[in-house]
Formats: sequence, structure tokens, C-alpha cells
Amino acid sequence: MASYLITGTSRGIGLKITSILASKPASEVSVVFAASRTESDALKKLIANSSGRVKFINIEVTNEESVKKAASEVKQVVGEKGLDVLLNNAGVMPYSPDGIETMTDLDSTFNTNVTSVHFVTSAFLPLLKKGNLKKVANISTTLGSIAMSQRYALFPVPAYKVSKAALNMLTVQYAQSFAEQGFTFLTISPGWVKTDLGGDSADLTVKQSATGVLDIIIPATTTENGKFYNVRVPGWEKAEGLNQYDGAQAPW
Amino acid sequence: MASYLITGTSRGIGLKITSILASKPASEVSVVFAASRTESDALKKLIANSSGRVKFINIEVTNEESVKKAASEVKQVVGEKGLDVLLNNAGVMPYSPDGIETMTDLDSTFNTNVTSVHFVTSAFLPLLKKGNLKKVANISTTLGSIAMSQRYALFPVPAYKVSKAALNMLTVQYAQSFAEQGFTFLTISPGWVKTDLGGDSADLTVKQSATGVLDIIIPATTTENGKFYNVRVPGWEKAEGLNQYDGAQAPW
Repeated sequence: MASYLITGTSRGIGLKITSILASKPASEVSVVFAASRTESDALKKLIANSSGRVKFINIEVTNEESVKKAASEVKQVVGEKGLDVLLNNAGVMPYSPDGIETMTDLDSTFNTNVTSVHFVTSAFLPLLKKGNLKKVANISTTLGSIAMSQRYALFPVPAYKVSKAALNMLTVQYAQSFAEQGFTFLTISPGWVKTDLGGDSADLTVKQSATGVLDIIIPATTTENGKFYNVRVPGWEKAEGLNQYDGAQAPW
Repeated sequence: MASYLITGTSRGIGLKITSILASKPASEVSVVFAASRTESDALKKLIANSSGRVKFINIEVTNEESVKKAASEVKQVVGEKGLDVLLNNAGVMPYSPDGIETMTDLDSTFNTNVTSVHFVTSAFLPLLKKGNLKKVANISTTLGSIAMSQRYALFPVPAYKVSKAALNMLTVQYAQSFAEQGFTFLTISPGWVKTDLGGDSADLTVKQSATGVLDIIIPATTTENGKFYNVRVPGWEKAEGLNQYDGAQAPW
């Protein structure tokens, strides 16, 4: 009977997670708020076929007023039950193919990938406090792991890497701040996924990644608060190096 | 005979580092460019007494045009000798005393503490490539260590912590990108210092910290490229917990 809100649901991992949650029995999932700037055809179709269990929420995560308005809309629906699970999934990954010294999108990438998560989390916090599960999962990446950075040195997305290291710290700060109130904040690497963002040569299908992300979020308890997990995907647990998706904690 | 440029030199650690470098023999230090938005009285006095070895460079590190202009001015002085050492020291540490959810300065703190370092580093890179030492040190903090974050949980500077974790990743990205060209990028925690930023109850005097930071920068070679060091201060190497300044690498 848990309620979820997911950002970045017009496509990719966010859309697939929404779809998987919508297919679960009502005893497990009561409602999924699919938050997005645009209602894609795929999301429209999912909503139309969801028997009212998936609700579209218009949100521009980089705009604090839009985020507050979205929280107000969700409040109208859930009332005193609050919101159980927030999944901050929206994000961008710009390339700097000509070298880090030519990078021009550090501020904008940080704004979208970090400040927006802060906007959304803080705006939905009053609803999350009323919810039963008090769970917040932020989609990060092992490319944001400073300790693992040598492995990804040739992947030219410096603004993305910087923003995700920052997102990991933001997640930990929230985790510490709300630990005593029973919250569970997680930061999760979804793997390299065949989405518009990840490209066709990526390792995982969207379904594999989305399933793996939910397999971390759903059973998580306060014991996992403030931890950084790599996605677990059957068949990929023992792959070497970059492509190991074993569900283990990733180093910072 | 090394040339240095230091940002944030109007006061605090940046001013003291400039002062210490200016007191070294010409065989070790040729010129120190003291970059700052404002030329404080203390900096004016230091420059006046430096026999021309300390030169003021007007810079607004958050303004890319100002940074480029500063690099152009330094180029006029150093010519083909280039610049040997860049020390990105300017930064801000705003408080969020009412909780992380009330934080309103995430973007601005990131802009000052991270994007500015990128502006300065990229603008001075052509001069650093011509220099002999090719050394860049960024002033970070163990408060930006995600692995150590539990220790600092009660210190209410979330935007600062997030920005410094991001700065650590930026430093590592630069280190990887220019390793083959013989660069040494360092990120250094100066300790908790009695400055305007650190307050009177801090552990270290400005002189202790500035000396310790230079004791890391000056002997550093390419072996240290991409590493994160805690300052080393005599008498504080074996202190417990937060106050241990042992010159060791800090965890990410």
C-alpha cells in the first residue's frame, strides 16, 4: 500500500520504474506519481492503462516554484497519509569531448543533478514525514565515485561526475539530518543502461536496471540509511571491473 | 625560482601563504601573484614590503571574464616562463543553522567553490603548461570527505560540504586529464583554522595551517597527482578524531 513519487518519468529508467510499480498489486503499491516536465506518449499510455494508479504530476525540477506546486498537488491527493517513497531520478549527462578545460556546463549540470534533488526533497519532506516508509532514493552513478574514478577516466563527462559526487554528499547530509526521524536515504548507481542518456552500446536493458534499482529500494530499511549501492543484475554480479552489477556498496 | 599564483589573498590562509612565500629566498620563489577581488590593507602592506616580489592581481573568481583578464595580466609578466604553481584558495562557507531542508545557497556555493576553480584552472592552464612545476593545489576540506561525514554531522554547513566533495572530484578529473603532461593536481584540507571563516575557537593558527599547506605543495611531485591530503601540523599529528592533522591522505 505504498505511495511513490518518481521524477524524470517521461522516458528511460524513470518510465520503466513507474511501469513496474504500476504492475504490482494494490497491496504493495497504492499510487505512483509520475513527475515529469513533459508527458511523453509512452507515459500517457502507461497512465491510461493504469486504472488510475499512475498519476501525472507536472514538474520542472530546476524550478523551485514548480516543485512546490507539484508537492501541493500531491498533498491534495494523499492528504494525511503522506508520501511513502520519493525517487529522484531526473538528471542530465553532458559531454565535454574536447577536454575538461573546455567544460562550460558545470553550473547547469549541478543545478539539474543536485540542486533539483534538494528542491524536490525539501518540498516533499512534509509529506514524507507523514508517510509510513520515509524513503528517499537518489539516482547517482559509480561515475560519481571519486574512489573509482580512475576506471572511468576515459569517459568524457566531467560535469556529470562532479555533480554525482556532490549528489552523494547531499544524500549523506540528508541521511544524517533525518536519521532520528526514521528516514532512509539511499544513493543508487543504476548501471550503464541502454537509454537515450546511456546509448545503445550500454550494458543493461532499461528493464534490468529499473528492476535492479527497485530491488534495492523496496527492501531497504533504516539500516541502509546514507549508503551508496550499485545495482544488482542477475548474470552481471561477477563481471569484471566497470561492468560489475552486484548490489554491493560502492566506495565514495 | 618558482612563480606562484594564489587566489583569495586578501586575508586568512591565502594572505599568510603569500606572506610565507614572499619571505623565502629568490632561489626558491621568484614571484607571487596575490589574486583577490579586493586589495585589503594587510595585502597592500605585504606587497609594499615585498620588494616587488608580490604582485596584486585583481580577480573576481566567479566571473569568467575577470579570470581571463587576470590570466592575461599574469602572462604579460611571466612571458614564456609561464606559471609554476597555482593555488586555488578562494572559497565560501555559508551556514544552514535551521537544517539542510532550508538551505538556499547550494548553487551559489558550488559556483564559488567549484566552478570558480574550474574557471581559474582552465584560464591559467596555458601558462601552467609553460611552467616548470605544473602544480595546482586546491584548498578543500575533510568536511568534504563523504567517508568522514559522520564525524562532522553536527557541523551545519551542508552546501560547503557538498561543494567540497564536488571540488575533490573536479581535482581528480583534472589530475587524470593532465597526468601525461607532467601535472600535479592536489586537493588539500587546511584544517580548522582561526580565520574569519573558521572562527576563534578553531584548532590551528593561520600560520600553522599556511605552513602545513605549503609543506604539502612544495615537495609534491607527479607521484602525488590526484591525491587528497590532510594538512600536517607539528603537535597535532596524533590528536584524536576530527583534530588529527597528520599529513596523511584523507578518504574520499
